[in-house]
Amino acid sequence: MNPVSLITRKRDGATLAASEIADLIAAYTRGDVPDYQMAAFLMAAFLNGLDTEEATALTKAMLHSGEVLDLSDLAGIKVDKHSTGGVGDKVSLILAPLVAACGVPVPMISGRGLGHTGGTLDKLEAIPGFNVNLSIGDYRRQLERIGVVMMGQTAEIAPADRKLYALRDVTGTVESIPLIAASIMSKKLAEGIDALVLDVKSGRGAFMKEEADARKLAETLVGIGQSVGKPTIGLLTDMSAPLGRAVGNWPETAEAIQILRNETPAGGAVDDVLEVTLALAGEMICLGGVASSPEAGIQTAKHALESGLAFEKWVELVETQGGDIAVLDDPEARVGAQPIAEILAPASGYVAEIDPLELGLASVRLGAGRTKKDDEVDPIAGFVLNKSVGSPVEAGEPLVTVFASDPSRLDTEAVQRAFTITREPPPAPPSRLIGRFDGVKWSA
Amino acid sequence: MNPVSLITRKRDGATLAASEIADLIAAYTRGDVPDYQMAAFLMAAFLNGLDTEEATALTKAMLHSGEVLDLSDLAGIKVDKHSTGGVGDKVSLILAPLVAACGVPVPMISGRGLGHTGGTLDKLEAIPGFNVNLSIGDYRRQLERIGVVMMGQTAEIAPADRKLYALRDVTGTVESIPLIAASIMSKKLAEGIDALVLDVKSGRGAFMKEEADARKLAETLVGIGQSVGKPTIGLLTDMSAPLGRAVGNWPETAEAIQILRNETPAGGAVDDVLEVTLALAGEMICLGGVASSPEAGIQTAKHALESGLAFEKWVELVETQGGDIAVLDDPEARVGAQPIAEILAPASGYVAEIDPLELGLASVRLGAGRTKKDDEVDPIAGFVLNKSVGSPVEAGEPLVTVFASDPSRLDTEAVQRAFTITREPPPAPPSRLIGRFDGVKWSA
Repeated sequence: MNPVSLITRKRDGATLAASEIADLIAAYTRGDVPDYQMAAFLMAAFLNGLDTEEATALTKAMLHSGEVLDLSDLAGIKVDKHSTGGVGDKVSLILAPLVAACGVPVPMISGRGLGHTGGTLDKLEAIPGFNVNLSIGDYRRQLERIGVVMMGQTAEIAPADRKLYALRDVTGTVESIPLIAASIMSKKLAEGIDALVLDVKSGRGAFMKEEADARKLAETLVGIGQSVGKPTIGLLTDMSAPLGRAVGNWPETAEAIQILRNETPAGGAVDDVLEVTLALAGEMICLGGVASSPEAGIQTAKHALESGLAFEKWVELVETQGGDIAVLDDPEARVGAQPIAEILAPASGYVAEIDPLELGLASVRLGAGRTKKDDEVDPIAGFVLNKSVGSPVEAGEPLVTVFASDPSRLDTEAVQRAFTITREPPPAPPSRLIGRFDGVKWSA
Repeated sequence: MNPVSLITRKRDGATLAASEIADLIAAYTRGDVPDYQMAAFLMAAFLNGLDTEEATALTKAMLHSGEVLDLSDLAGIKVDKHSTGGVGDKVSLILAPLVAACGVPVPMISGRGLGHTGGTLDKLEAIPGFNVNLSIGDYRRQLERIGVVMMGQTAEIAPADRKLYALRDVTGTVESIPLIAASIMSKKLAEGIDALVLDVKSGRGAFMKEEADARKLAETLVGIGQSVGKPTIGLLTDMSAPLGRAVGNWPETAEAIQILRNETPAGGAVDDVLEVTLALAGEMICLGGVASSPEAGIQTAKHALESGLAFEKWVELVETQGGDIAVLDDPEARVGAQPIAEILAPASGYVAEIDPLELGLASVRLGAGRTKKDDEVDPIAGFVLNKSVGSPVEAGEPLVTVFASDPSRLDTEAVQRAFTITREPPPAPPSRLIGRFDGVKWSA
């Protein structure tokens, strides 16, 4: 394998053989191909693209760079979900215990927040005591015993992806659909899952701002999953406004707890978090063989929520992983979870838009996220929105409740700027659910 | 200066400001931008291009990464020539003393052979004792005293180019016209020249196989030279067959000596080496202010050759740089310069083609060139062609005379394969001179 020849051919628009990609990634992981050659290859791949076969080969090469868990000796069809990330996306915290409560084992390995979007691990760690750093042995045993486990990526899983991701981050080669897809799928396929549901987000608060790009990413992800024999479904969901009412680690965890407790949000509005969660749960329960269709799966999930079985599984999960279960019964009692400010509406009218990117970035500045990989996050920091898109608002009314350990990091003007208030009511916001890709065709 | 932002913008097709390119190259030269970021930038520049302003900014940044010689206190308009390289191109050895003999100072810094084309330094070093490793002080003093100096690049000149060239070589980013042009011009402009003539070669034995690419390279080179205020002329010359009769270091030097001695080649054929040399000399003598037009410059050069003044200057140059001048009077007397084989024509007919690439690669295998940067070259190794394109030939007649220290490295079949022999005579070969670019327009 001559790396210069592979770089040159990709540069000139050729399609590489799977074995060539496998050799390149193996040599890079061993350190036999230096970062500067991989950087040139990544830029050539970014600009000239990788087709589905190449992306699949890249995924497999990264997957097999480390340990691939084998959970086949455990009962049940193991199903996981991956979201491409958005502002206010606390769905995993609800979904994992909910689907497990329906009898489908959920082995979930998640990431931390980077950029304007949050990460599941940071939200779990906002529960005092919750331990996401399990060994692979603990992961297997917990999944077998209680049917759900949520942890962070270990050093054994897809080391090539970690090395490549760090390089892409500093060489302007992040926003490539096949490179993103291979990175996501190599980690997910290493978990030992049998099937996968993807939540691909589109809009201003998402990684993919354009719906066409989000659709292309969903198709690539589903294509890779199916080509390695794992049933995979992709849902396309809207991220043109923050999902739900909370943004920030503990605020989002508290919102997830409320939904798991089957408490209706104030005002009786349609709960968009619940809408997305149920759609994903329906797919997972169907893929897991417990329901005969996604629609039947949604009914199963609704029953698990309403009966309290989902909350019970959640309590069991948190307790097993060392979390303080007292806060699950009374989220407001969590130490430090008292508001420090209310941000008021600057005008009367209707909330026409809430810019998720602006709000996500303001939450990072407040301490909820990281600007560098090793930044500490403030688990408390975040916003709770008192108004959603379409709400009437009076000047001086509280728009946003602020939580933070360090009030000096609050950028009130940025939060206000995220809200567009108009005199006329805006059209009713569309459903969060835009489309569903089953590997062959899109449906609504 | 944020390197990721510059990489990303070039990746997305933006044009960078001169100051941004200057900052990037300065940071790379200091080691503040790592190789992997520069590799990603180079691949983005390769695929999305650099316009003339960007290429000029890159040239200036590389030029100012090291010492820029100032020869303005020396009398005369200092003019140099650069060739993009071909097989059998010994023109510099004749041109430098010839133009200097006409009163135009020639400060020439050259390179070594790499790949299938030779390098001027290797040819000079084939003269026993010739020293190309001068200090910058020696370079100035010799130019002032005898009007001509030929040496290798020193560590002080364009260090950014050396670092970038080494990186391009291992990242598949060599064959980019603006990157090639910036590399050439940064080194040439550091020499302290006032004007420059470029010999851009096109055809199978050249770096640019396609005439359109060679024209584009000539335009880019001339554009950069003129934009930094140095009068620059580009000649486009043909490299579809080896230039002249000799390929290899000493064989080429011996051929150059013969031309400097004003000896007509056997058979009375038009000497293509002389044709190209005179065309370049005419331009240099005109740019140097000694003739009023290139055509008048050619007449001046012819007179210098015929009168023996050019050969006298050559002897003075070789002697000053420590070379053995005895071999200039009797090239065949050079130690080791005896043929080891004759390669015979496999068929009768006419020589229709001589493949310069095949012959160049066979000469490298024979020891005349390098496959790795630190290979030693065999100064003796090479070929002398007894037939040129259009010559009639009888089966069994000597086609090529072989010189080498290690006969086991001779690939007879490859040498024969370089010759295409046909039954009918081919059309007369066209002139080596294809075009001339003055910065505004092409002329023949």
